[in-house]
Amino acid sequence: MTLPSCTCPAPEKRVCSWPSASYTDSSDDETSPRDKQQKNSKGNGDFCIKNIKQADFGRREIEIAEQEMPALMALRKRAQGEKPLAGAKVVGCTHITAQTAVLMETLSALGAQCRWAACNIYSTQNEVAAALAEGGFSVFAWKGESEDDFWWCIDRCVNVEGWQPNMILDDGGDLTHWIYKKYPSMFKKIKGIVEESVTGVHRLYQLSKAGKLCVPAMNVNDSVTKQKFDNLYCCRESILDGYKRTTDVMFGGKQVVVCGYGEVGKGCCAALKAMGSIVYVTEIDPICALQACMDGFRLVKLNEVIRQVDIVITCTGNKNVVVREHLDRMKNGCIVCNMGHSNTEIDVASLRTPELTWERVRSQVDHVIWPDGKRIVLLAEGRLLNLSCSTVPTFVLSITATTQALALIELYNAPEGRYKQDVYLLPKKMGKGFFSFTVVNQLKVLMNRHRKICQEL
Amino acid sequence: MTLPSCTCPAPEKRVCSWPSASYTDSSDDETSPRDKQQKNSKGNGDFCIKNIKQADFGRREIEIAEQEMPALMALRKRAQGEKPLAGAKVVGCTHITAQTAVLMETLSALGAQCRWAACNIYSTQNEVAAALAEGGFSVFAWKGESEDDFWWCIDRCVNVEGWQPNMILDDGGDLTHWIYKKYPSMFKKIKGIVEESVTGVHRLYQLSKAGKLCVPAMNVNDSVTKQKFDNLYCCRESILDGYKRTTDVMFGGKQVVVCGYGEVGKGCCAALKAMGSIVYVTEIDPICALQACMDGFRLVKLNEVIRQVDIVITCTGNKNVVVREHLDRMKNGCIVCNMGHSNTEIDVASLRTPELTWERVRSQVDHVIWPDGKRIVLLAEGRLLNLSCSTVPTFVLSITATTQALALIELYNAPEGRYKQDVYLLPKKMGKGFFSFTVVNQLKVLMNRHRKICQEL
Amino acid sequence: MTLPSCTCPAPEKRVCSWPSASYTDSSDDETSPRDKQQKNSKGNGDFCIKNIKQADFGRREIEIAEQEMPALMALRKRAQGEKPLAGAKVVGCTHITAQTAVLMETLSALGAQCRWAACNIYSTQNEVAAALAEGGFSVFAWKGESEDDFWWCIDRCVNVEGWQPNMILDDGGDLTHWIYKKYPSMFKKIKGIVEESVTGVHRLYQLSKAGKLCVPAMNVNDSVTKQKFDNLYCCRESILDGYKRTTDVMFGGKQVVVCGYGEVGKGCCAALKAMGSIVYVTEIDPICALQACMDGFRLVKLNEVIRQVDIVITCTGNKNVVVREHLDRMKNGCIVCNMGHSNTEIDVASLRTPELTWERVRSQVDHVIWPDGKRIVLLAEGRLLNLSCSTVPTFVLSITATTQALALIELYNAPEGRYKQDVYLLPKKMGKGFFSFTVVNQLKVLMNRHRKICQEL
Amino acid sequence: MTLPSCTCPAPEKRVCSWPSASYTDSSDDETSPRDKQQKNSKGNGDFCIKNIKQADFGRREIEIAEQEMPALMALRKRAQGEKPLAGAKVVGCTHITAQTAVLMETLSALGAQCRWAACNIYSTQNEVAAALAEGGFSVFAWKGESEDDFWWCIDRCVNVEGWQPNMILDDGGDLTHWIYKKYPSMFKKIKGIVEESVTGVHRLYQLSKAGKLCVPAMNVNDSVTKQKFDNLYCCRESILDGYKRTTDVMFGGKQVVVCGYGEVGKGCCAALKAMGSIVYVTEIDPICALQACMDGFRLVKLNEVIRQVDIVITCTGNKNVVVREHLDRMKNGCIVCNMGHSNTEIDVASLRTPELTWERVRSQVDHVIWPDGKRIVLLAEGRLLNLSCSTVPTFVLSITATTQALALIELYNAPEGRYKQDVYLLPKKMGKGFFSFTVVNQLKVLMNRHRKICQEL
Repeated sequence: MTLPSCTCPAPEKRVCSWPSASYTDSSDDETSPRDKQQKNSKGNGDFCIKNIKQADFGRREIEIAEQEMPALMALRKRAQGEKPLAGAKVVGCTHITAQTAVLMETLSALGAQCRWAACNIYSTQNEVAAALAEGGFSVFAWKGESEDDFWWCIDRCVNVEGWQPNMILDDGGDLTHWIYKKYPSMFKKIKGIVEESVTGVHRLYQLSKAGKLCVPAMNVNDSVTKQKFDNLYCCRESILDGYKRTTDVMFGGKQVVVCGYGEVGKGCCAALKAMGSIVYVTEIDPICALQACMDGFRLVKLNEVIRQVDIVITCTGNKNVVVREHLDRMKNGCIVCNMGHSNTEIDVASLRTPELTWERVRSQVDHVIWPDGKRIVLLAEGRLLNLSCSTVPTFVLSITATTQALALIELYNAPEGRYKQDVYLLPKKMGKGFFSFTVVNQLKVLMNRHRKICQEL
Repeated sequence: MTLPSCTCPAPEKRVCSWPSASYTDSSDDETSPRDKQQKNSKGNGDFCIKNIKQADFGRREIEIAEQEMPALMALRKRAQGEKPLAGAKVVGCTHITAQTAVLMETLSALGAQCRWAACNIYSTQNEVAAALAEGGFSVFAWKGESEDDFWWCIDRCVNVEGWQPNMILDDGGDLTHWIYKKYPSMFKKIKGIVEESVTGVHRLYQLSKAGKLCVPAMNVNDSVTKQKFDNLYCCRESILDGYKRTTDVMFGGKQVVVCGYGEVGKGCCAALKAMGSIVYVTEIDPICALQACMDGFRLVKLNEVIRQVDIVITCTGNKNVVVREHLDRMKNGCIVCNMGHSNTEIDVASLRTPELTWERVRSQVDHVIWPDGKRIVLLAEGRLLNLSCSTVPTFVLSITATTQALALIELYNAPEGRYKQDVYLLPKKMGKGFFSFTVVNQLKVLMNRHRKICQEL
Repeated sequence: MTLPSCTCPAPEKRVCSWPSASYTDSSDDETSPRDKQQKNSKGNGDFCIKNIKQADFGRREIEIAEQEMPALMALRKRAQGEKPLAGAKVVGCTHITAQTAVLMETLSALGAQCRWAACNIYSTQNEVAAALAEGGFSVFAWKGESEDDFWWCIDRCVNVEGWQPNMILDDGGDLTHWIYKKYPSMFKKIKGIVEESVTGVHRLYQLSKAGKLCVPAMNVNDSVTKQKFDNLYCCRESILDGYKRTTDVMFGGKQVVVCGYGEVGKGCCAALKAMGSIVYVTEIDPICALQACMDGFRLVKLNEVIRQVDIVITCTGNKNVVVREHLDRMKNGCIVCNMGHSNTEIDVASLRTPELTWERVRSQVDHVIWPDGKRIVLLAEGRLLNLSCSTVPTFVLSITATTQALALIELYNAPEGRYKQDVYLLPKKMGKGFFSFTVVNQLKVLMNRHRKICQEL
Repeated sequence: MTLPSCTCPAPEKRVCSWPSASYTDSSDDETSPRDKQQKNSKGNGDFCIKNIKQADFGRREIEIAEQEMPALMALRKRAQGEKPLAGAKVVGCTHITAQTAVLMETLSALGAQCRWAACNIYSTQNEVAAALAEGGFSVFAWKGESEDDFWWCIDRCVNVEGWQPNMILDDGGDLTHWIYKKYPSMFKKIKGIVEESVTGVHRLYQLSKAGKLCVPAMNVNDSVTKQKFDNLYCCRESILDGYKRTTDVMFGGKQVVVCGYGEVGKGCCAALKAMGSIVYVTEIDPICALQACMDGFRLVKLNEVIRQVDIVITCTGNKNVVVREHLDRMKNGCIVCNMGHSNTEIDVASLRTPELTWERVRSQVDHVIWPDGKRIVLLAEGRLLNLSCSTVPTFVLSITATTQALALIELYNAPEGRYKQDVYLLPKKMGKGFFSFTVVNQLKVLMNRHRKICQEL
């Protein structure tokens, strides 16, 4: 199979390693899933995964996730009678995790048929994929796919006899890209695209601008539910989690510089301040910079503090925030990581020079050693710490997943003409009165947790 | 003089009492300023204030304020050479405080002529008014004006021989209203209105909607600089300040319910949490409610906690949030106050019944006593605690005042046709390149405070 | 009358100005209370105060205080049946405030007779003194006593025909000192001394060491209830309160150096951090210094940051922490204050030189002006900010006052021989089973506030 | 070999599983180390460990640890010239981790000979043990020892020809116990015992009380350096770390009850509050309870909130704080763990009944399932979460390890008669002027981190 001449490889996402729920998965089976013949207990074999025998373990992970996804479970309960996705044929390409499984099973309960591939070659939880296959889903994904495997799996989702998707749920745009390149005629039957990532949304806007977008698309990434919760509250927790799992370092008394004071930076700074770190902030947007000041963080330029800090965190969304010159000046033992949008904030390439020695000390942890013996601790090779080295809280993923489901419902049921060949944000009031459904349901659960019934919400 | 048939009396603002910087002002002079003949040291008598002899004290207050208004002082320094307000005749109606004086003297340095009245019958700092009069400003204001005085002062600002305003700077809309009612022809020469308050902006939008707005208007209230800083950061400090000054109560261990989790509520909650209070939140907007949960506040309905809390704070922006039924159920000693948008959040009128006894125990503090002896402590009679019982930090007022000045500059210098008879937000990029000037300059000062020079900003 | 040759004048305490609850007390009556003849409504005239007519206002202040003094009120209720102080004749010398009045009325309810003077020439709340006199207490105190008045009042408490004290309640040691000098034979009947202040306790230990202490004494200052709560939790609130009332300064974004990280410093730092200040700490004790680091404060030497900070706070307990050299290097507008044990942490005397100009800008606020125009803002002339410029929370005073009452009960009822002529801490288990009574009762109230009954405590 | 009739099995410690630095250690070698013949590169074979080939990996872990143990490294540097432990023969029994290795190599640098066993059958880092063996230390320990192995290893440390210990470094008291039972005559040459744990110290005090302690002992557990830092600051971080690694749960919005508000509870509460949890506290000590209130936590009884909370954490130091009745009333999904002193705070035994199903879902995570399907998530089977499921920050261990080293130095060099057959705390001033050495050196490093040299400390 030949790879299409893809102009947007988003390589960062496909080489990162996803934390598997199963630390015990030390299967020595080295046979490629593509070479195996597996069937689930009902005799169905329309899937390609690591090992169908892991289904029970995966089912437990899914059940655990369900408990932390109240909005999605409430949507499933509320809408499964009317089946708003009856007739929908959804092809999906996302991280394949327990949380995604809850989403897929919700879509199924609402009437949809699903075929699914992974959007990342490392992030698949094999046990969850097994549970999905056992449950009858056509899943094509495993942890540690090759580049070739990656596109092969996507192709298997769409290129199937007697079945043609009418909805796309994408995360990163690779699936959409593949259909554009290989099966453009499929778009005739497709009612819309739901896209979750920054990168994928960016691609869609480019297509739209170029007049090449041929179906309506929903931008989930910029929905208020995602922006207000995902970045701030997730990162507040995952910065601590990611650091501890990789380095076991103590936060108390450490000097930290956080580059960027957007939502991600705000979350990181709040967490580290609470743990007793001394936090400096660099920021070029004046509004955010003044917020940093008012929140009690000393505003600096990176050069001013680079020699003295113990930890450097990038979350600006820009390129080359930390460059070789900074790395040269850091002190021995300084830990460097990225929480921003891509793998380009730290100029990792500049460290691939002969005089520097790289030593892999743990999974996701490299020591880069200077000729004089100075060691810099680089996490996840500059990729996203929160994706590579910590887990994303299920509770927050629930909001995003529900928004994805609502976007599918809206696009699938929208009357002719409501949406054109453009990129949209989810409307606040949907046809079926789902206004603020997603947040309201998380809230109801929290209220019930507080032993209160929140009737008027 | 007859009062115009004013449909929008905004009585709340005009009866509140403003904290005077001068606690020693116990002048026993009871003569009305309107009956006095005063002249400043240069022989000018075109003003009407309490006592010109207080000018020195007022000057010192203005100098203190200048140190905390870096953005405004920087604007003054930067623009006084080119005098972007040369020829501008500004009539203003705002609180007359040291901070306003810094604004007025900045406008003057940029070339404007100013005549000024108070937007509130209690908020004038007499010493500051004296210093302004001594400095040559035509000020008509004193603390404790009557309703009649209030309109008389406004009239003296606009109804003057040989001078006609071409710009309006208003706070609350009373000045604008007066000119509409009494001197509508003046609008022929007026280039625009700058309005700072929620109420005044609301009136302008109503005028605009009714097709009656005859000049462009700038809405300063909704500018990002005001929204992002004024509410959150000011209220975080003034909730503590206002409570202490009125009740000396300890925050540690107190149970508090905060009604509303917008920017004001977020500020109040953060401050009280930090001081060791146990904070509950009521909120009906699902996004804000979920934020409250994620920030660690227990979400409740007011009825659930009304019997047990020590302090009740309203900041919803709605009417009748705390009603008589709630007040009846509060425990002895419960303290009730309002930090929201108006004096209507607490139904104070419902407490004016024969069986309840009111006792004024301190300035701005009433005990309302039930037949069984239970006392509720009501602050500022339900008006805004932060305006009535604390001071607003000068540093934050600096941002707002600079925005007002920039709005005047923009409207005054805008080329024909840029602004129509509508309400506008200040553009991010202004004609003279003042982009983000206001925030950037606060920032520069903060950076210098940090001994850093922030050149690229 | 001649002053005794007092070796320990504790001048700091006697010149400080106490915040009066009554901001409206602008009485122009300049007659000295010593020259007035006043009687209360029952015809009793054995007191000397400002104005008996203010009794009603004072009574209200006492009632407000009672609501925040749960431990003391519970002790009153619990012990008034058995009257453990029946026969006790207590002479007291403390700040005369609403909180003290609650203590005095509790002692009276437990059976004691009381005569009382002020321990500070400025701290008396005249209205409270009036309410006490109206209630039958022999009080000798007013705000603004002269040095001569001070000792005259103390003398009137003890030098009275037909009444001799058998218990002393002192705050600062002046009363004890006076009896030692003038009426040493009185100690024959005195069963013990209860002393609350650092200074007074220090004097007692000196007496004890010199073999001159002739009765047992209770050291209330070092009781766990005072140490654990008074310093940390009070100062956390009063640092904010004191600054706001004097300067109206915004805390957000300010750079602050706190000298000393004991309980007081910990309280100040926590509050300022929460308000968004950037806080530096100086500390020489290694344990406290490491705590500061672990709590997220940057540890510095004063010299390193003195040029850049906006606010300097001393709370080391040492002398000359901030000296002229530091003051010379501070930037324009820097605010300096003391939260530590005495008025000696800031070398204020060094600022009394001809080239510097002092300007009193508000009560308790001086601008000290350098020849080049630089102004330093000095609060309370270097005396304790929390005593001079803010109020101490009644709730915490309740713990201390209850401890004082328990100490009196213990000393008065102790069997012969339990206490010798030495200084003691209050025992954890008292004769009457009052173990932890004071804290437990505050707690019970808090628990009831939480609508819980805490029976087993 | 027969086990001695040990009355104090401290079973909790020996069954817990220690987080290994090496997640990659999936060696399939099942041969018992006791059956292997291994030699290090210099031909020395006086050790018994898992696999000498892992030495390089272990060395790297030790080097990483050195960077976070400034006090210990400074002691090594400062004292290695004078060799204060020359002639010392130390037998040790502790967790064998990278941090212990830094301690052992420090003791060696100061002149001591060391033989070492593990105090816990699961906590040994095999790679570190290999590095120590390669470096010439006689180490007898591996991860996953049997009970028999455990005592065999201890015996191999002490029962060796031509070598007799003169110092004991113990953690838990098992080594001390063994020597008492089997080789009591050894105590003739032993100069002292240094004990680190609560349990071990408790045993020593019992021995001392019974008149059976035959050498001096140092109680490291109660040293100020351990109490002030280890509990508060470690637990503040490890509560978050332990929860995330086991459950990936989100903290924001969760309702948590923390049982006990000592140093451990204070650390847990502070961390959870900062992460946005709603925290309740149970506490029976009145001082601590009032502190909890003043710190903003709602004080409750466990019964009042047990139905509604998401997370239950015990840290009281008492037995049976959470019993079956509580567990029966918890809601589905409630997570339960212990951060207190032992494995007895949660009555785990009460869950071993036929109607409940246990399901091991991850390492250290059990689901206990009620007949109605309700699942309780039990972490580490009620053992210490921070030891079982998170790592202890090296930086804080550095303080404790330095205190252990100083205690050895003090006991070994103390002149005849300074210490009797009793249990002592480390004196503040030691013979060689090491006053506060441990904290001071951590501090120096922090100061240097802050680019400051702190000379006078």
